Amino acid sequence: MANHQQFQLCYQNWMAQQKVDHDELLQGLTNFPTDLDYLQLITKKAINHFENYHTVRAQLAKHDGLSFLAPTWGTTFENSSLWIGGCRPSLIIRLVYVLCGSQINAHLAEVLDGVTRGNLGDLSNFQLKSVDALHIKTIKEEDKLTSALASVQEKVADEPIALLAYNCKKVGESSEGEAVDKAMDTHAFDVYKIIIEADKLRLDILKRMIDILTPLQAVELLLVSKKLNLCLHEWGKRRDFQMGITQLLNTQIPSTSRDPPSE
Amino acid sequence: MANHQQFQLCYQNWMAQQKVDHDELLQGLTNFPTDLDYLQLITKKAINHFENYHTVRAQLAKHDGLSFLAPTWGTTFENSSLWIGGCRPSLIIRLVYVLCGSQINAHLAEVLDGVTRGNLGDLSNFQLKSVDALHIKTIKEEDKLTSALASVQEKVADEPIALLAYNCKKVGESSEGEAVDKAMDTHAFDVYKIIIEADKLRLDILKRMIDILTPLQAVELLLVSKKLNLCLHEWGKRRDFQMGITQLLNTQIPSTSRDPPSE
Repeated sequence: MANHQQFQLCYQNWMAQQKVDHDELLQGLTNFPTDLDYLQLITKKAINHFENYHTVRAQLAKHDGLSFLAPTWGTTFENSSLWIGGCRPSLIIRLVYVLCGSQINAHLAEVLDGVTRGNLGDLSNFQLKSVDALHIKTIKEEDKLTSALASVQEKVADEPIALLAYNCKKVGESSEGEAVDKAMDTHAFDVYKIIIEADKLRLDILKRMIDILTPLQAVELLLVSKKLNLCLHEWGKRRDFQMGITQLLNTQIPSTSRDPPSE
Repeated sequence: MANHQQFQLCYQNWMAQQKVDHDELLQGLTNFPTDLDYLQLITKKAINHFENYHTVRAQLAKHDGLSFLAPTWGTTFENSSLWIGGCRPSLIIRLVYVLCGSQINAHLAEVLDGVTRGNLGDLSNFQLKSVDALHIKTIKEEDKLTSALASVQEKVADEPIALLAYNCKKVGESSEGEAVDKAMDTHAFDVYKIIIEADKLRLDILKRMIDILTPLQAVELLLVSKKLNLCLHEWGKRRDFQMGITQLLNTQIPSTSRDPPSE
């Protein structure tokens, strides 16, 4: 059986990978903003890393889908933002809307110092229509999986679990320990299957969004997306520390990932 | 600021209260199945305890709604079944459907040894129609709150949080620490408001269900509901131990609530 620490390690590795990808995307955007081949190369690399992360997650989640639905390794802020074990696929679309015409974009324009044409603030009408269509599709697909998860969660109050609970002679003890284990494993496997579908949707929507964008816009979006993930992780750690959670969780994860921030 | 251990204690107290209520409901059902006044009294007591729990939760959640959305104190099984920080209101209806005509009911009939008339297996057509109507209402209300939570979660990829992340000079560090804290507090308060609404819905649906049922049926439902909650908690602890989670979490919670089961 997979060790729970492997689940935590998988997430920590993914955060570290995102930091590497972030730095590479930033370098690419800063130093080679007109080299389309290079921009496409680093975009593909970042997408591949996301796929690899999903592959490892899928292997681990098969052993216990429940842990990926209610992880102990993320910060409270990150965990409270989860949708079926990860971020909402629609977040990437929200981010495009924000980047398209926000102060972020204005700031980005300054940073790029002249290389503003063709960035996310310059989405064409055709691109905007494609993003809108993708948004509608994404919400529909999210709703389907939200309902599927609700159905699985409701099964907890149905047979066989409710029956096994009723048949306990003493609360919590079970004369049918194997049946309880089997029922919980079945439940965990049902959850695992939905997590896999949710991961597929996350990746699919990201790829479709990249296809709508120019190479420069794609790198911009990935860069801001990585930076947002990394910041939320760091800010979440600081918040957990302030809330008195980190002190407890530091005893749980032997790595540095939950250390109180140095600032 | 509320201590995180208070959040854990609040939950542990609630589990202990549920055990007391369970035992009282079982005694009432076994010894006084025809004493309607007594059955109504213990039903009211159990409902009052649920309300009191919500009052304490609300006071604590005001300090950090996020912790109640992604609690560290429940077992992985319980946490993976959460809907906005608690159980789905529709679960109580699912349980009525299961009790109405399942093996549980047949078994309950044996236990009651003759006092089967008027139990949950004998719901009248009028009652069944009322339960169906309540089911439809519940799903609609759940969907509304699910959407409300989705909107709050999506704000993470919007201003001000996305902008603050973008403006970080170094990932995770923030020259605008106060602004980050404020944005996260605002987010946590938005989450808190939805948790309060979800708690109201959980209580409201339970009360409406009790109103549909006879005093005997109400006690039966509450009894099975408490037993299910308590069993899931105990089985969840055993599962976490088997998955290698409990060992870690035992260092986190100094109480006995996550001790490996003795069986």
